[in-house]
Amino acid sequence: MAHIQLPEELPGIRGLMAFRPYTAKPLNALAEALLRIDEGLLKGERELIATFVSYLNDCFFCQSIHGAVAQYYYPDSEIVQQVKTDYLSAPISDKMKALLTIAKSVQQGGKHVTEEQISQAKDAGATDLEIHDTVLIAAAFCMFNRYVDGLGTFAPNSPELYQQRAKRIAEETGYQYSVPQ
Amino acid sequence: MAHIQLPEELPGIRGLMAFRPYTAKPLNALAEALLRIDEGLLKGERELIATFVSYLNDCFFCQSIHGAVAQYYYPDSEIVQQVKTDYLSAPISDKMKALLTIAKSVQQGGKHVTEEQISQAKDAGATDLEIHDTVLIAAAFCMFNRYVDGLGTFAPNSPELYQQRAKRIAEETGYQYSVPQ
Repeated sequence: MAHIQLPEELPGIRGLMAFRPYTAKPLNALAEALLRIDEGLLKGERELIATFVSYLNDCFFCQSIHGAVAQYYYPDSEIVQQVKTDYLSAPISDKMKALLTIAKSVQQGGKHVTEEQISQAKDAGATDLEIHDTVLIAAAFCMFNRYVDGLGTFAPNSPELYQQRAKRIAEETGYQYSVPQ
Repeated sequence: MAHIQLPEELPGIRGLMAFRPYTAKPLNALAEALLRIDEGLLKGERELIATFVSYLNDCFFCQSIHGAVAQYYYPDSEIVQQVKTDYLSAPISDKMKALLTIAKSVQQGGKHVTEEQISQAKDAGATDLEIHDTVLIAAAFCMFNRYVDGLGTFAPNSPELYQQRAKRIAEETGYQYSVPQ
């Protein structure tokens, strides 16, 4: 049971957003800005970073929904499971591997990011904007994950539910705020 | 030196916001929604939570600027230093002590928040909205702190600079996004 009284039919962050639209609006706007553009990093790469950090933070809801969205963009692979198991062996670019290493450090704490990690990312072709967005996406999911788990929200188990919602997010709604249904 | 090329004259998150206005806008809107209202928690209480979490995350810039804003709202005390040193002995309400205990758990990870901590906060008079806002403020500063330190930004040492800016934030600008000057 959640730590506060929430609309019971809405899982994870959705119940929290229905509880408090006032903060839901900027949170949605941030998710939209971080995850829904292809400038520098592609949408699928952004979702992979979000999923990886949510996995490291052990947030079931966030890693399930963002994992399903990430997987939507890589339909012919098992990329999400591969990144979780061993991202350095996953079928992704050296640039993405270097950026996931930075994201992993951010998850531990901002000061864990090293000059060497930054150099490796730049040597692999990462731009300043891509490094910036990686750090901010990783940092943002350290927030979203704590918000979802810190208030004890529930999360469904069914992978199909996350896949259906992921398809809708990717093809229709994005993360724009709307009154929960 | 910061990990990416930033406008050098702007410290902490301000350089990052000048680098990327696209993400600065929702980040500012979130800070404004979390810190600049007196509904439930007062502005000073919100800034205290932000400062305490930034202190636990060892983020010098964030604990300095939000500490200065918090202190602005408690002009006749040394509240910020007292909360950092031992919040359970600080001259704050039992409700605020219970909420800071929750914030401390959120800083460690969402699943660190316990039923007992929530019960103690409710017994001390905390509403669901106050618990919600405490968790979200604590979570958000786990983001802001990682953003600021994960990109290696610089921070001035002078307490006077933070006090001047804090006064301006509290009395005039808030955290609304504006083109950096």
